[in-house]
Amino acid sequence: MNSAADNSPERLVHVPLGERAYDILIGPDLIAHAGGEITARLKGRKAAIVTDEHVAPLYLEALMDSLQTDGIEAVSLTLPAGEKTKSVEPLVAVCDMALSARIERNDCIIALGGGVIGDLAGFAAGIVRRGVRFVQIPTTLLSQVDSSVGGKTGINTRHGKNLLGVFHQPDLVLSDTGALDTLSEREFRAGYAEVAKYGLIDKPDFFAWLEKNWRAVFAGGAARAEAIAISCQAKADVVVEDERETGRRALLNLGHTFGHALEAATQYDSRRLVHGEGVAIGMVLAHRFSARMNLASPDDAARVEAHLKAVGLPTLISDIPGEALPTEVLMNAIAQDKKVKGGQLTFILTHGIGQSFIADDVPASEVQSFLEETQKG
Amino acid sequence: MNSAADNSPERLVHVPLGERAYDILIGPDLIAHAGGEITARLKGRKAAIVTDEHVAPLYLEALMDSLQTDGIEAVSLTLPAGEKTKSVEPLVAVCDMALSARIERNDCIIALGGGVIGDLAGFAAGIVRRGVRFVQIPTTLLSQVDSSVGGKTGINTRHGKNLLGVFHQPDLVLSDTGALDTLSEREFRAGYAEVAKYGLIDKPDFFAWLEKNWRAVFAGGAARAEAIAISCQAKADVVVEDERETGRRALLNLGHTFGHALEAATQYDSRRLVHGEGVAIGMVLAHRFSARMNLASPDDAARVEAHLKAVGLPTLISDIPGEALPTEVLMNAIAQDKKVKGGQLTFILTHGIGQSFIADDVPASEVQSFLEETQKG
Repeated sequence: MNSAADNSPERLVHVPLGERAYDILIGPDLIAHAGGEITARLKGRKAAIVTDEHVAPLYLEALMDSLQTDGIEAVSLTLPAGEKTKSVEPLVAVCDMALSARIERNDCIIALGGGVIGDLAGFAAGIVRRGVRFVQIPTTLLSQVDSSVGGKTGINTRHGKNLLGVFHQPDLVLSDTGALDTLSEREFRAGYAEVAKYGLIDKPDFFAWLEKNWRAVFAGGAARAEAIAISCQAKADVVVEDERETGRRALLNLGHTFGHALEAATQYDSRRLVHGEGVAIGMVLAHRFSARMNLASPDDAARVEAHLKAVGLPTLISDIPGEALPTEVLMNAIAQDKKVKGGQLTFILTHGIGQSFIADDVPASEVQSFLEETQKG
Repeated sequence: MNSAADNSPERLVHVPLGERAYDILIGPDLIAHAGGEITARLKGRKAAIVTDEHVAPLYLEALMDSLQTDGIEAVSLTLPAGEKTKSVEPLVAVCDMALSARIERNDCIIALGGGVIGDLAGFAAGIVRRGVRFVQIPTTLLSQVDSSVGGKTGINTRHGKNLLGVFHQPDLVLSDTGALDTLSEREFRAGYAEVAKYGLIDKPDFFAWLEKNWRAVFAGGAARAEAIAISCQAKADVVVEDERETGRRALLNLGHTFGHALEAATQYDSRRLVHGEGVAIGMVLAHRFSARMNLASPDDAARVEAHLKAVGLPTLISDIPGEALPTEVLMNAIAQDKKVKGGQLTFILTHGIGQSFIADDVPASEVQSFLEETQKG
């Protein structure tokens, strides 16, 4: 935790995945220097950029200019912003753009945007010519610390979220911390929930550091870059151990089973709840449920709740605006979740802050009574 | 080459790809015993079968019965036969079937059919939940010796063939040699072109054996199973060395650059030319072009031509029925081929029978004059 002393603008996290190894660069002005970073690492000199209507006016021109300066021929496709873009038609449109531009295996598809754009563009990069190079330029805190690292890509179907996709690692991630200055407070906070998650999974010192330094992280500068770098490193460590989520990688779902259920129960209406907010409530619930099962101290649950509340995140189901969410609806949503195996519920539970573990035999009845009590008050 | 002495009905080729290792079983009656072979190897007890209108009436019921007997719950989707099925809409339909049936990672998608069904179903298996198990039951000689081995999957787009797809290895291949009895002579011959190819790539003894024993291979029985097993082993050896086609795997394209050009120039009209026939002509052209470049003896080209002609395959461009194919059209098709890199043509050429090699600097002008001379006479 040397952020206070360190003013170096750029950090590098290396993800050592053998022949799929790649670097994550974190710092200001990376979009404006993307061309140089890409030509230093990739052989191809063509790129197909995928972005959305919110991000394009802010950064597309700077990115195109940088690519052109370094001799990369680029085309771009600007899609509607929002979760609906993670579907078949936009995927086909991205592939068609890449093939029209004659993107070959050593050329790249670039994702310029948040998690939706990253998941969609990464999926396209994984299937065009059975895999072309992929560069992530995440522009939200959530995508910088979570979805841009690890190679999971995907789109949604009528059966649920992320049900079609591939594992396709990026060849380079450029996390331009300057891009975060244009995020709304709410969007930044939602991303911060995933930052706190890494502390809660297995880094109690990091969580304690965040409790002290979160204002500096929100303000920007070295503390923010530090928090992003530690988060990326934490995720990279898990991914390297378990690239295809057959085991330990499931820890990254801390807070997500409850969180996904809340998102589903609110019909993914971002006016009521965004992903990071669902994760924040979900993490508090996971800690309180663990305490109820006598796995962890209630003091830890209280500490998690206090910190997330301090930064302005929702921590209770009743914090979600709009009509109440009946336990039955939440239980149904949990049962639909893809992390259910053979009828029993898999949850990430905890023995305390920084001591999470995978529990694959949680009785649905316990979860239901816990939610009923919680909802009552 | 112990086929004459060996009457064992079933052969096994193991493809040692580490954690993606799998077995290819070759023999009669495998469709009727698919359930047992699958339950012996896979943990899941659900399957989604993809087949086509030609194959379904012949084998779908036997397969469903076998799965049911062994406790596998199966659903199926029967698609139109033919290359047009390798496109986005059928892909989405297969994924939707699998998700509706709640196929999870340890369950499988089964391809029952030829190369089109295998490529489509394999692509779906590679993207549903970012990868579920995949079982190939190839019912044509071509798919038994070529497309069912190696993990290449894909669909066509308006830009060309197989431009979207993934590498997704099967978990089991069941090559039921009995299914080949229902193929037309023409279809069997077309598959045989790929069998001969393995001899021409690097197995001169196998090619000599085929020259002597091809009638027995066509007749069925032990010689046929032997030829299929040797072909699968040959392909598996190359795939193990170079799973993602960064080098040596390109040798499998012997005859395919010319062959694909001929298929494109005849608009993939199967009344005029099917894939294996294009490969047969392409292999003869590759040998003759190599002789013309003083890389190989003209006697070898003559020997290849004589053998393919003996089995009834076309060996000359002029053997293709319908209007003539101008050199210009063929050169354009070659230039569109995805194996073109940086303007120069990549061809598989040869120093003689069983001595193929990758040439990545073949001047387009030489190919053009060769084709012009060939076409004249």
